Amino acid sequence: MKYSRRSVDAPAAGGQASGRESTAATFQGMSMGVPRRTSRDIRSDSRLDVLHAVLSAGETTRNEIAQATGLSPATVVTIVGELLAGGIVEETKSTPGRIGRPTATVSMSTERTRVVGIDVAETYIRAVLFDTALGQIASVEDARDEHDLDPDAVVEGIGRTIDRLLAENEVPREDVLGVGVALPGLIHGPTGVSIVVPHWTWHKVELDHLRERVGLPLVIENPLKSIATAELWLGRGRSCSSLVTVNLGTGVGAGIVLEGRILRGATNSAGEWGHSLLALDGRACRCGRNGCVEAYVGAPGIQLTLREIAPGHALADLDAQSDFITALAAVANGPDPDPAVLETIDRTAYYLGSALADLVAVVNPELVLLTGWTTWALGDSLVAATRRHLVAQSPGGAIVGAELDVSTVRGNSVATGVAMIVLERFLADAGLVTTSIPVAL
Amino acid sequence: MKYSRRSVDAPAAGGQASGRESTAATFQGMSMGVPRRTSRDIRSDSRLDVLHAVLSAGETTRNEIAQATGLSPATVVTIVGELLAGGIVEETKSTPGRIGRPTATVSMSTERTRVVGIDVAETYIRAVLFDTALGQIASVEDARDEHDLDPDAVVEGIGRTIDRLLAENEVPREDVLGVGVALPGLIHGPTGVSIVVPHWTWHKVELDHLRERVGLPLVIENPLKSIATAELWLGRGRSCSSLVTVNLGTGVGAGIVLEGRILRGATNSAGEWGHSLLALDGRACRCGRNGCVEAYVGAPGIQLTLREIAPGHALADLDAQSDFITALAAVANGPDPDPAVLETIDRTAYYLGSALADLVAVVNPELVLLTGWTTWALGDSLVAATRRHLVAQSPGGAIVGAELDVSTVRGNSVATGVAMIVLERFLADAGLVTTSIPVAL
Ligand SMILES: [Zn+2]
Ligand SMILES: [Zn+2]
Repeated sequence: MKYSRRSVDAPAAGGQASGRESTAATFQGMSMGVPRRTSRDIRSDSRLDVLHAVLSAGETTRNEIAQATGLSPATVVTIVGELLAGGIVEETKSTPGRIGRPTATVSMSTERTRVVGIDVAETYIRAVLFDTALGQIASVEDARDEHDLDPDAVVEGIGRTIDRLLAENEVPREDVLGVGVALPGLIHGPTGVSIVVPHWTWHKVELDHLRERVGLPLVIENPLKSIATAELWLGRGRSCSSLVTVNLGTGVGAGIVLEGRILRGATNSAGEWGHSLLALDGRACRCGRNGCVEAYVGAPGIQLTLREIAPGHALADLDAQSDFITALAAVANGPDPDPAVLETIDRTAYYLGSALADLVAVVNPELVLLTGWTTWALGDSLVAATRRHLVAQSPGGAIVGAELDVSTVRGNSVATGVAMIVLERFLADAGLVTTSIPVAL
Repeated sequence: MKYSRRSVDAPAAGGQASGRESTAATFQGMSMGVPRRTSRDIRSDSRLDVLHAVLSAGETTRNEIAQATGLSPATVVTIVGELLAGGIVEETKSTPGRIGRPTATVSMSTERTRVVGIDVAETYIRAVLFDTALGQIASVEDARDEHDLDPDAVVEGIGRTIDRLLAENEVPREDVLGVGVALPGLIHGPTGVSIVVPHWTWHKVELDHLRERVGLPLVIENPLKSIATAELWLGRGRSCSSLVTVNLGTGVGAGIVLEGRILRGATNSAGEWGHSLLALDGRACRCGRNGCVEAYVGAPGIQLTLREIAPGHALADLDAQSDFITALAAVANGPDPDPAVLETIDRTAYYLGSALADLVAVVNPELVLLTGWTTWALGDSLVAATRRHLVAQSPGGAIVGAELDVSTVRGNSVATGVAMIVLERFLADAGLVTTSIPVAL
């Protein structure tokens, strides 16, 4: 099954109410910035470019890679040779060329190893098994008690879910190239890893024992950067060099891609947007600040907006956030839409469009992609109005160059994205790329 | 006079009330993004690195350049040779080396040519003459009628100021390597230039005739990106790879440096922050939006804050914004500070710290540098309180990794920065670097 050709799954059921959030927390004195103005290893960069071209195309030829990357054909031949030798790519078939000579087709090696991507959300841990072309082979999901915030329990839960995934699919641990774990609000150091999960009341929890428990090469990343990575390699990032992914669920967060790379910033906490201000001294946010974007466009925020518009509204009393959003969408798209519901959606679009206008102004991306279960549920009724408000609220009143759309990446893009980071890390460890993948245990 | 050793001037008088602003306006359908994942010309990048090392150090040696850039000594020798041959750098002297051999010192060529940087503000046009080491030789300033928004008049004003600068200093036009013009709210296309100056009610004004009028190689850039460029080459950017410069005056704006380069975004409008929301549906801003950062921390916004705190306060009636800020600073730092004035400054710091917390969260820089005449006037009374609020308002309640400080770059950093961009452009046109300098007529 080819990477770019495979059909996209419907949103995973487990993705409901997953509570994506993010933090801007950083460690004092820690700096993981890219070394300043040192010479770049152009060969390594080129290897990543070639890898990206192969992953994006599924099956491709050396000539097509040269066209896609702008590298010289000779360079592509050299690099493909290295990737073939390393077992990263394989020659799948030869097709007759225009001048009669057969042209070899190159694709990612699908047999050599496995990659595991783990999405640790508030209410579940989902583990997905991939081949090295990031084709999904299997997945398992275990429920998590969202009130159990003990780091040891989370570590054990992750370990158990991985064990089950591998056992059920009879994958020997030696076949696993690496495991990527997406943990909300992640922050990490260059040596060892600590994470900060504000909503989980974790602060600087050392996760060294996660490495021991997993016993496999391990990468940890924030779910929002994982989503952006998936978009970069699987979605619109394939044809666009700068984009922002915005995840709408219980929490709200963004991932930023600039010049084809995830914006990490000085300490890997760039892209924090869900807890930036929409309204000074506004609604209380669960992060402790007032007036955050999330307090208005996260699912509980949307419910609060409905409550403000129509106190005592039937939908305002629904306990489960995903039920609330689903019911809201059903009413909005139903035959006789409730004015309070429509106003709730439009006001949400106003909040979201206003907040996105700021993000777009600072980052100036080509494209903003909405994702997450609120996006899937409300769909165009939210997106079209948001687009209108985004343009109207664009600073300077001028035209917004950025396009607003719904991501085409489906399935668990968190698990896929963090698995992609595992793959990059593996190539880096094998000496095949020297890209900066900052998070590895 | 060496570049990095020269004494910094006091803020130029003409810099008062200069009305820096910025826009996020973009042209529809225009994309100036960096080509995606094409191979980089590593040699060209290295040349810029070497140039940067020479500019930063003033006088340096090949060995020091190799250390500063991470390039191999052999590469440095090659590149310095090319820059010597091109007349960009020169060997200034030889000093005895540790093992007895003389070590040649390299610095920017100071004789070969001249560079002009123009700061077009609301009330003046200032032209500064530099040598190619960006040492300031002379400057002239002409008043501008801030109500004369006719593009032809602005073009003629720029041309006249350049003419006067060159005539008074007896500089033949052939000696001028290029002219950089900083215009507020600039937006431009890859072929030809148009600009959008919202506060000047210009929209997509074609400035082709500026090229004709000036008759010299011309580069146009936004003043905020010019300030960030100056900081990058002359200020803290010399020791830090990611920073944000924040200009506080009549208008408010930011320039962003990531990985040692100005963040330009897809259409060169990245970094727009002055007109992002601080308070949804808040104070009316001159850009047409409500609740912008500028409406709270621009000089008129600070005056409005004082008026809210103490209606009828004597300072609230001062007409000239620079007089107001100067008077506010005098009272705050005086022997018997007025509580209303102190509260105004603290509330301004609260607004600024809150807004900066958002910017820091999205960009995650190592350093935020305040500049502009409000910064110079209010100094530490504003900065210390802003730092406190920035930490308190940091999303997630966690530690902010970014440092907040006052820029050490003085003088007209707009003119200096845009002159630096001329230099980069010149090197690019000479085939010595292939960096992306997007704005050139
Ligand atoms: Zn918050
Ligand atoms: Zn504004």
